[in-house]
Amino acid sequence: MSVTAPSGFQAAGVASGMKANGNPDLALVVNGGPHPAAAAVFTSNRFAAAPVQWSRAAMARNAQLGSAPRAVVLNSAGANACTQAAGFADTESTAAKAAKLLQLPLEQILVCSTGLIGEPLKMDKLLPGLDDAYARLSTAGGPDAAAAIITTDSHPKHFSLAHETFLGPVVVGGMAKGAGMLAPGLATMLVVVTTDVKIDSRTAQRCLEAAVGQSFNRIDSDGCMSTNDTVILLASGSSEISLPEGQFTSLLTSVCEKLALDLISDAEGASHDIRIDVVNSATESAGLEVARAIARSNLFKAAIFGNDPNWGRILSAAGTVPPEVAPFDPDQVDVVMNGVTVCRGGGVGEDRSRVDLSAREVCISVDLHAGDQRVTLWTNDLTHDYIHENSAYSS
Amino acid sequence: MSVTAPSGFQAAGVASGMKANGNPDLALVVNGGPHPAAAAVFTSNRFAAAPVQWSRAAMARNAQLGSAPRAVVLNSAGANACTQAAGFADTESTAAKAAKLLQLPLEQILVCSTGLIGEPLKMDKLLPGLDDAYARLSTAGGPDAAAAIITTDSHPKHFSLAHETFLGPVVVGGMAKGAGMLAPGLATMLVVVTTDVKIDSRTAQRCLEAAVGQSFNRIDSDGCMSTNDTVILLASGSSEISLPEGQFTSLLTSVCEKLALDLISDAEGASHDIRIDVVNSATESAGLEVARAIARSNLFKAAIFGNDPNWGRILSAAGTVPPEVAPFDPDQVDVVMNGVTVCRGGGVGEDRSRVDLSAREVCISVDLHAGDQRVTLWTNDLTHDYIHENSAYSS
Repeated sequence: MSVTAPSGFQAAGVASGMKANGNPDLALVVNGGPHPAAAAVFTSNRFAAAPVQWSRAAMARNAQLGSAPRAVVLNSAGANACTQAAGFADTESTAAKAAKLLQLPLEQILVCSTGLIGEPLKMDKLLPGLDDAYARLSTAGGPDAAAAIITTDSHPKHFSLAHETFLGPVVVGGMAKGAGMLAPGLATMLVVVTTDVKIDSRTAQRCLEAAVGQSFNRIDSDGCMSTNDTVILLASGSSEISLPEGQFTSLLTSVCEKLALDLISDAEGASHDIRIDVVNSATESAGLEVARAIARSNLFKAAIFGNDPNWGRILSAAGTVPPEVAPFDPDQVDVVMNGVTVCRGGGVGEDRSRVDLSAREVCISVDLHAGDQRVTLWTNDLTHDYIHENSAYSS
Repeated sequence: MSVTAPSGFQAAGVASGMKANGNPDLALVVNGGPHPAAAAVFTSNRFAAAPVQWSRAAMARNAQLGSAPRAVVLNSAGANACTQAAGFADTESTAAKAAKLLQLPLEQILVCSTGLIGEPLKMDKLLPGLDDAYARLSTAGGPDAAAAIITTDSHPKHFSLAHETFLGPVVVGGMAKGAGMLAPGLATMLVVVTTDVKIDSRTAQRCLEAAVGQSFNRIDSDGCMSTNDTVILLASGSSEISLPEGQFTSLLTSVCEKLALDLISDAEGASHDIRIDVVNSATESAGLEVARAIARSNLFKAAIFGNDPNWGRILSAAGTVPPEVAPFDPDQVDVVMNGVTVCRGGGVGEDRSRVDLSAREVCISVDLHAGDQRVTLWTNDLTHDYIHENSAYSS
């Protein structure tokens, strides 16, 4: 399971003492090759955290040199965002320490952080913690690493998938953290995916972007995008097996989808996971815009929390998308809630009292009758627990 | 006060029996001239309710004929949205009945509705209610009309303003309802503003659009836009006084601002009114987009509910606005919360524990250092009561 499921990887997770409660807070993942490659996708938030700035620059430098990052240091005790030059220096010290321990060039170390914005990291705990993590690196360390990156998550999130080819098996493994601020352009989430597939970094980047587009960018818990979101793919090549690009993308997408759904189902304070299918849209992006408008309607999300099949709020939200973005005729739109067509042709359909919203998973299908594209977006309901978790303390 | 404050107007508000609890639910406002003019702004939601479709068409027809609508019928017992052809026929019957009572051409009757989407109106109550409203029309009926258009509002909202000119006084009065779904492109709100100023309909339309842009479009309670939003301006001309366009716009804006702030301070379940000033933006629209991104961040709004000066969530939200929409350098941004500069130059500023968020009004100022424009947008915090009001029953 987790990031050490594929051969060629070692990982560790430790409690460095940065978290006041003594929980694990520092993880290290190392790619042992023999054919190391890497790809990464970062938040599009303009207040990118210091580790995002660092890792983005490191990816660019490796691309210039024809090399690939070999290790990732992740901490869950502070975002190191909006911390200015001192924060960037802390990220650089973290990378330098890991580079020294692993005897790797500085640019081959990526760094990820998550936690409160605007607070300096406790470097006096982090740096000694790295010694500890290095000492504990192991091919069975994936689950420990997954446990060390969580914040308000209720449980560590990791997954792996083996795929048989006629040359032998290949494996993709991954870990993720995230339980709020889940939105497109990534979420408050850190994800590391590993594989023993032999692939070059340029191809890996294309595959990762495609997989993220169909997975992490299709979950939108609360419309908020963080300053730290990062998805990293490391490939060791130790299987010596290469896959056709489409096949690897598909495998990678499966792992990313599984991790993304794990994030949504653990979103802060949610009581429903809501699947929004927008079908028969003119284009994929048109469908996605309609789905996002619905997923971001607080009135809709509060109604689902109250088990109220208030389809008017679905249409009101869809109706805010401009025609040039998503062409459709309001008088043609159907809405199905958990199998009941509550709205037909933009008006009253079947009896809404027949909709049973008691289960955790809710499925909304909106048929635009405007084309043949379809998209799926996942979100959560808006609950008292969401308010409580996000008002009762800083995070 | 209210819509009968200016001379030339009569109004009434009655309980027709459409509301199960027997509360007032039907209002009638009539412009007696002698120089009637009208203007209107409607929701941009594509699922426009039947009364919006009707009133929009009536405005266009009057423009063709060189006439002006003379009366507005408003009900607060159902949105008559997503009700298809039958719903439109109900609106038409409502207008026809009012036209007959008032002996006016059909196109001179505007109709507004608010309430639950997707339910037919109780026409067997509404039509006899109109007889009653007609019988009760009075130059003192403004407050009754204001009371008859509210839904979940805690109190009727109305206001009037007298302005001295060297020819004598002119008056602007208005009433509004709205307590949720408050967003740009208008809110779940119905507004009727009246004046005795002498003005033509074309000028009135320009003045109204300008006033709405600076008032109702600068409040965004929960990011949701309704299917029924309407702002109507009726001018009687009975003062026989014309004002320069800029002066009338300014007067109209004052009344609209007062009504808009009344809506925000009565927003469903809110415990804080949050004023967001974005200053030194490159353009007005750039500042507005940044303000809206902050106003729509559930994480930020929940933090304010918790009296937590979590400025990181303000920057995260601002950082989601693309550079081409709002150019600014993240390393230059300052954030002031209730007078304390918690963030300076994109990083930690003064001690955030000094911020006192205990008062109802909270003032956030974000300085982009990217130009010389400034905008103000009002929103609310996200509270348990918001969730309760929007999940516990259909509305």
